[in-house]
Amino acid sequence: MSAAPLQVRDIGSFHVGGQMVSLTGLAPRLRVSTANGAVHPIDPNGEMIAGQMYVQYVKLAAPRSPHPLLLWHGGGMSGVNWETTPDGRAGWQMFFLRAGFDVFVSDAVERGRASWAPYPDVFKDAPYFRTGREAWEETFRFGPAGSWNVDPAQRRSHDGLRFPIARMEGFMNQFVPRWGDNDALTQHAYDALVGSLESSIVLTHSQGGNFGLQAALHAPDRIKAVISLEPSGAPDPEHCDPAVLGDVPHLFVWGDYLDQHPFWVESVPKVRRWYEALVAAGVNAQWIDLPSRGIVGNSHALMADSNSDAIGKMVHEWMCEMNLVTST
Amino acid sequence: MSAAPLQVRDIGSFHVGGQMVSLTGLAPRLRVSTANGAVHPIDPNGEMIAGQMYVQYVKLAAPRSPHPLLLWHGGGMSGVNWETTPDGRAGWQMFFLRAGFDVFVSDAVERGRASWAPYPDVFKDAPYFRTGREAWEETFRFGPAGSWNVDPAQRRSHDGLRFPIARMEGFMNQFVPRWGDNDALTQHAYDALVGSLESSIVLTHSQGGNFGLQAALHAPDRIKAVISLEPSGAPDPEHCDPAVLGDVPHLFVWGDYLDQHPFWVESVPKVRRWYEALVAAGVNAQWIDLPSRGIVGNSHALMADSNSDAIGKMVHEWMCEMNLVTST
Repeated sequence: MSAAPLQVRDIGSFHVGGQMVSLTGLAPRLRVSTANGAVHPIDPNGEMIAGQMYVQYVKLAAPRSPHPLLLWHGGGMSGVNWETTPDGRAGWQMFFLRAGFDVFVSDAVERGRASWAPYPDVFKDAPYFRTGREAWEETFRFGPAGSWNVDPAQRRSHDGLRFPIARMEGFMNQFVPRWGDNDALTQHAYDALVGSLESSIVLTHSQGGNFGLQAALHAPDRIKAVISLEPSGAPDPEHCDPAVLGDVPHLFVWGDYLDQHPFWVESVPKVRRWYEALVAAGVNAQWIDLPSRGIVGNSHALMADSNSDAIGKMVHEWMCEMNLVTST
Repeated sequence: MSAAPLQVRDIGSFHVGGQMVSLTGLAPRLRVSTANGAVHPIDPNGEMIAGQMYVQYVKLAAPRSPHPLLLWHGGGMSGVNWETTPDGRAGWQMFFLRAGFDVFVSDAVERGRASWAPYPDVFKDAPYFRTGREAWEETFRFGPAGSWNVDPAQRRSHDGLRFPIARMEGFMNQFVPRWGDNDALTQHAYDALVGSLESSIVLTHSQGGNFGLQAALHAPDRIKAVISLEPSGAPDPEHCDPAVLGDVPHLFVWGDYLDQHPFWVESVPKVRRWYEALVAAGVNAQWIDLPSRGIVGNSHALMADSNSDAIGKMVHEWMCEMNLVTST
């Protein structure tokens, strides 16, 4: 984890999972493409790709794990979550590069550089846009109900909160629209990514969690471990059999204030049920509740909180215990 | 330009140029955030950031230029254009990292990881989606009018074309929606990026060109050179005075088939007019028409064509001539 220069072999990107769609019957439009530029007639009908996912990789000259680490973001977010934290510290992309992993950061279908498709022509519904209040009071647990305010000085946060709320606006810059009906497309693209790699370790956040847990069920031979930071959902043991996951260790990590926010009060037991099914099936699964270890104040944004490096180190130690890192 | 490991000091990102907006009067909705997950009530009203731009940087341990290189993409595209080419070769991000520059790749307002804002609530109009036909026959000049076909085997391309058309679908994966009315927001964000850096070299493609040329007018003390790959527009000499650009060398690079596509027949003279105004004002400006140098077959996607490295080398040599690179 030194600050010596990273020895980088390659940086690049690709897309996976998309397919060609054709649009017909739409009315023509006119467009000026640049100030002082030509006026184009635009025919919106024709072919485009939809359902693709974006993956950016940084590969090291001498990785210390044979398995690339895939970082999958949560809902209404993009891979930017894994880069610099809102208060300017190194994100987990850099943390795990320094720990010796080739790191693949993706933008899921419809998010960021994955692009998105016209609605209602291709995507069926209109997207949702995250508000500051929803992030603050509901999903990210920065403060209790009623504590958001447009004026930063008037916002109240939870006692001891580790999220850098002075940079809330910087965090809000990262929000991207999300759709509610693209789960199948998104899972298809994640599975295509996993299928394109001989092996990988999947590390997810929030909405990415369910996709990662499902991906492991779909490719237990290729996925060498699943690390879920506060997954917002999980497979249903009534419909999915965890027995195929005997060789795939699972780690779940949870922050603070979960009992004070209705979304999480409802969500955590559904994930716990899958964890218990994993354990019952003999899968090596671990459930880390940070407050019960004396680590209090973590929001839903574990990888952006002030102790993000310490949590990264905890995850890395688990990866070492699971023999996912080549000993040096 | 060796294939030795890159010595990387830091990889990260930030957003610039956004501002808080408030939405009111929208009807509530319901959302299921993940399969088997909780049903949320969603209030679409509230605060969000709009007009922000995304910037990702790779900084070297020992850059060979004091000026970071900013790569600004074209219309309907994102920074992905500068990463791996559609046929899997290293893009210009990696090319100029290997040449010794700190490289900043941005996604302009509304594109990719910059996110976008609700319309018609914040952005006024609906976005445009690029079709395969428009890219093929009009903007990117892969083939003449009528040569696009949904079946790759039936597509006709220009004789001698250097774009890797076998990977057209890979290129189409990179398309992102664009709006027609966000020029002011976009320029504001680019200017904010330039203003946040002591110095920079701006290298643009297509629609990015006009933003880069304007940015130089706005900050001639900070921008050390402007390199425009096939800009689709330029400042109007009737309204902008190039005299402030005396210390800012300009390079324009153009590919082939320009006289066979109406959009370019109309666009090139507008840019040429600005180039001539620069020369008349004593600015060190160079206009490279590749075919007139015997380099034929280049599409609008100069940085993705099969000779992208050779064109990168030409640009790099010009940068050396302009004393932008520390001699070694």
